[in-house]
Amino acid sequence: MAWTQHLRIKNQWVKEFLAEFLGTFVLMLFGDGNVAQSVLSREAYGDFLSINLGWWVAVTMGIYASAGISGGHINPAVSLALAVVGKFSWKKLPVYVLAQFIGAFAASACLYGVYLDALNAFDGGNRMVLGVNASAMIWATYPQEYLTLQGGLGDQILGTALLMLSVLAITDKRNNGAPAGMVAIMVGLSVLGIGLSFGSNCGYAINPARDFPPRLFTYCAGWGTEVWTPRGMHWWFVPIVGPCIGAIGGALLYILCVEAHHTPEHEMPITDQEENISADIIMKRRDEDSNSL
Amino acid sequence: MAWTQHLRIKNQWVKEFLAEFLGTFVLMLFGDGNVAQSVLSREAYGDFLSINLGWWVAVTMGIYASAGISGGHINPAVSLALAVVGKFSWKKLPVYVLAQFIGAFAASACLYGVYLDALNAFDGGNRMVLGVNASAMIWATYPQEYLTLQGGLGDQILGTALLMLSVLAITDKRNNGAPAGMVAIMVGLSVLGIGLSFGSNCGYAINPARDFPPRLFTYCAGWGTEVWTPRGMHWWFVPIVGPCIGAIGGALLYILCVEAHHTPEHEMPITDQEENISADIIMKRRDEDSNSL
Amino acid sequence: MAWTQHLRIKNQWVKEFLAEFLGTFVLMLFGDGNVAQSVLSREAYGDFLSINLGWWVAVTMGIYASAGISGGHINPAVSLALAVVGKFSWKKLPVYVLAQFIGAFAASACLYGVYLDALNAFDGGNRMVLGVNASAMIWATYPQEYLTLQGGLGDQILGTALLMLSVLAITDKRNNGAPAGMVAIMVGLSVLGIGLSFGSNCGYAINPARDFPPRLFTYCAGWGTEVWTPRGMHWWFVPIVGPCIGAIGGALLYILCVEAHHTPEHEMPITDQEENISADIIMKRRDEDSNSL
Amino acid sequence: MAWTQHLRIKNQWVKEFLAEFLGTFVLMLFGDGNVAQSVLSREAYGDFLSINLGWWVAVTMGIYASAGISGGHINPAVSLALAVVGKFSWKKLPVYVLAQFIGAFAASACLYGVYLDALNAFDGGNRMVLGVNASAMIWATYPQEYLTLQGGLGDQILGTALLMLSVLAITDKRNNGAPAGMVAIMVGLSVLGIGLSFGSNCGYAINPARDFPPRLFTYCAGWGTEVWTPRGMHWWFVPIVGPCIGAIGGALLYILCVEAHHTPEHEMPITDQEENISADIIMKRRDEDSNSL
Repeated sequence: MAWTQHLRIKNQWVKEFLAEFLGTFVLMLFGDGNVAQSVLSREAYGDFLSINLGWWVAVTMGIYASAGISGGHINPAVSLALAVVGKFSWKKLPVYVLAQFIGAFAASACLYGVYLDALNAFDGGNRMVLGVNASAMIWATYPQEYLTLQGGLGDQILGTALLMLSVLAITDKRNNGAPAGMVAIMVGLSVLGIGLSFGSNCGYAINPARDFPPRLFTYCAGWGTEVWTPRGMHWWFVPIVGPCIGAIGGALLYILCVEAHHTPEHEMPITDQEENISADIIMKRRDEDSNSL
Repeated sequence: MAWTQHLRIKNQWVKEFLAEFLGTFVLMLFGDGNVAQSVLSREAYGDFLSINLGWWVAVTMGIYASAGISGGHINPAVSLALAVVGKFSWKKLPVYVLAQFIGAFAASACLYGVYLDALNAFDGGNRMVLGVNASAMIWATYPQEYLTLQGGLGDQILGTALLMLSVLAITDKRNNGAPAGMVAIMVGLSVLGIGLSFGSNCGYAINPARDFPPRLFTYCAGWGTEVWTPRGMHWWFVPIVGPCIGAIGGALLYILCVEAHHTPEHEMPITDQEENISADIIMKRRDEDSNSL
Repeated sequence: MAWTQHLRIKNQWVKEFLAEFLGTFVLMLFGDGNVAQSVLSREAYGDFLSINLGWWVAVTMGIYASAGISGGHINPAVSLALAVVGKFSWKKLPVYVLAQFIGAFAASACLYGVYLDALNAFDGGNRMVLGVNASAMIWATYPQEYLTLQGGLGDQILGTALLMLSVLAITDKRNNGAPAGMVAIMVGLSVLGIGLSFGSNCGYAINPARDFPPRLFTYCAGWGTEVWTPRGMHWWFVPIVGPCIGAIGGALLYILCVEAHHTPEHEMPITDQEENISADIIMKRRDEDSNSL
Repeated sequence: MAWTQHLRIKNQWVKEFLAEFLGTFVLMLFGDGNVAQSVLSREAYGDFLSINLGWWVAVTMGIYASAGISGGHINPAVSLALAVVGKFSWKKLPVYVLAQFIGAFAASACLYGVYLDALNAFDGGNRMVLGVNASAMIWATYPQEYLTLQGGLGDQILGTALLMLSVLAITDKRNNGAPAGMVAIMVGLSVLGIGLSFGSNCGYAINPARDFPPRLFTYCAGWGTEVWTPRGMHWWFVPIVGPCIGAIGGALLYILCVEAHHTPEHEMPITDQEENISADIIMKRRDEDSNSL
């Protein structure tokens, strides 16, 4: 496709910014879209299980859209934790977070457009955060009535720790990592699991970009200040702080239990390195043969 | 199997025509079949979630049946968008679209035969487009009452953009593409996601061949002119025009954000090309470049 | 494991018999097990969707248990169709069918043992074929009231044609076949799709071994002659004859549309053949050994 | 990550202990977490199907976390059966079982913390084993009222036999084994199948570490002695003894029907052995290192 060569950007930082933007945009369109479908149809076209399955696909497609370019973090807590443990550059961190936030905000606005007819039919134009016609939870997460702030923090810490731990395990080639092109669906599967297991307390944000920019969008689009403080509780910071702590904790747990103890490559016998060449050659060749799709 | 050599057709165009025909035939049998099961059993043997899952399988099997021969478009909007961005031959476009339409029409007729007993038990022979005994939506898609034409167009554009974007990401070996033999199920998964997230407004046609030929079939088979203009709205053109715009838009978005910026192969260092021949280098390099997940 | 060498049987026919026996045994335990769970709990622990998902797993595990040894047919209609189109030995056909029938009968008996407590709690010991306490459909399939014999035959023919067609596509390395170790789950997925789309008319037997031996078991275990002729209809032969016709038809359709037109290997350029040697050799060899799917 | 080198433990036994601990910890957090969500929300955020799906993810992630290091048994019955048939070291068995039990107990305590708010809202602080406010079944399994002890044993034996048989088939490279990095999800799928088919009698523990340590936790945390003897029945030993018998039986069945009859490698033609070297070497080596599944 010769025409695309004029569009080419060679700056690695811009490339990664765009990939994280796109990945998070895709994540949030698929993800919040399925909450919208469930809420606005009053569960006729979706329920909590379909929401869980929808986030599985959302994470999978978000990672496919970006992982080869930017690593497919699409989650500031993941970027932060990778930086903390030395697997990601601190300098790039703000660039990634900005891209993730913009992507999520843009997706929130698109979603609003696509579901505007349905939204008006749902609440007659009277946007609500709580109650039977509430729709703010399409965009951001809200806690159950019984949940305390500490309970919410614990929930977000544990959920994100499980995510981060799963991500490191799934991508660890010296453990039992998934094949490269299958990482996306496996990470998505871990999020399905978190939704099935730790979704009821407060909606498993486990990602500041999944929660804060959409919340900001609802604030801008007329849902009012209650989006920040539902039932008088300063909820909004929980899905930001909790995931950051949890992701770091999950990364450390995996490293302490598994990764730190791997045999370093320079200590492996020579023959192993040679075998790497002889062993993966087959897959590569087949890819070339098959004209892709 | 020596006997098959007498059947062999060497003309590439005919081979691709047959593959697209078969792929779309399989897509539509699995796909509309599961809507039929849900509608005609009055949800005893299916609901919206099972319909979403059914389309996942339908897309997967349709692509397996055709992708190695014709690329497995099984969707005129995909063929069109690929032609627009220079990845598919304009000359072949009408051949593909014809094959897709014939495949979908043939599947519609087969489906009618298999479910005729059930259909007669369901509506007593009185075919309806709307109302409690409506069955036209087994074949084609219809909008919710609240939906405007613009809203429907927006829905179809966004949904198909997500499909096209996912297809390009999943098959992009310089990003994080799926293994060749796993592309079918991943593209199917993106359609599952679209059904879970953007299925409630108007049934996620996102494919003119999925909608128009079956609609034509219902018109021919006795459902009347209302299949074209339900509630007096010229709905029928929305699932044709919307997907075409959306697929082009989605392709451009992916190219602008990711694909245009890939390093062309002739610019890659010599050692890289050698390593390409040998093996998993792309994966290894990708991991290093991208501060992998 | 030195101790197993004393158990080793070298006769290829016995090895394949045992593999088909085990594969069908696993298929039917998982498969009918999930129907039992749904029926006997009066849908508290299962419904039609969970039954569909359960058969997905059942087919997947049945194939994993056998495919490398016997090809993993676990279905007499598949064995027959493969023989008809020249991909399987006619001489082995009766051996395979016998193994499949014995495997399914053994699984039926095991299932009865595991669910005997539940069965007695369900019907108080009064085994029924039809009605609110009916349990015969745990083992074999029964048609809906509205279904005619012809309708049932058409349903079984179409469903099995889709299965056979999917099997050939998924395993066709010159199309877009699944990776060798992933064929099992993909074939399972096609059965999930058939259940979601063509399961409501008469329970998608699409396999004589899935239907006849369990029906015979219920006859032996006290459900009476009604298992053969529910509502006075000679239903029992439909899930035997229909699948056989359908599997042959589906195989022919795939061959006519796709497989017959592949470039034969001896016509491919030398370089291709070399790559084939370096790339596919292991899989191919295994395929040849095992009359693979 | 230079800093991790100071943490490195080279003792193979400790590495395997930590991996089994982590794998079982992840298994039980995901697994019992989804039961908690379903029970405590009174099925608003989960039902039996979502529990089945949740255990699929739980097993998958538990295996990803550990399989490359310890083989990913995360189940004492699996470790025992592998030792019995000569695939695992008897000396390591107590180390593995201890790691599995501690991992499951630790997960039980974490789960209690995360769901404490919900638990108190659910039962007002009055912990119950049976009845409408019962929550003990979040941690351990309990039988249906109709089930006899023998029936429960039979259920656990059959379920675990299916698990063990599936594990051996999925990892058998001389049959049709899954690709190395996909074993985790396939074993998880077999557990999904067991839940869908043999989950209603008594909750498919099929793993002593999944049942005993959480039961002990509920005893310690205030649910009382009824957790050991619900309805006066000494239930607690069934999900310990049954799985051990079943896993051994399933392993023997697979070996007798399939594995014992494989051609030993030293009898294969030279060319085959060479190809094995070029193709499977990494997988094989990893398998040997890790007492793989």
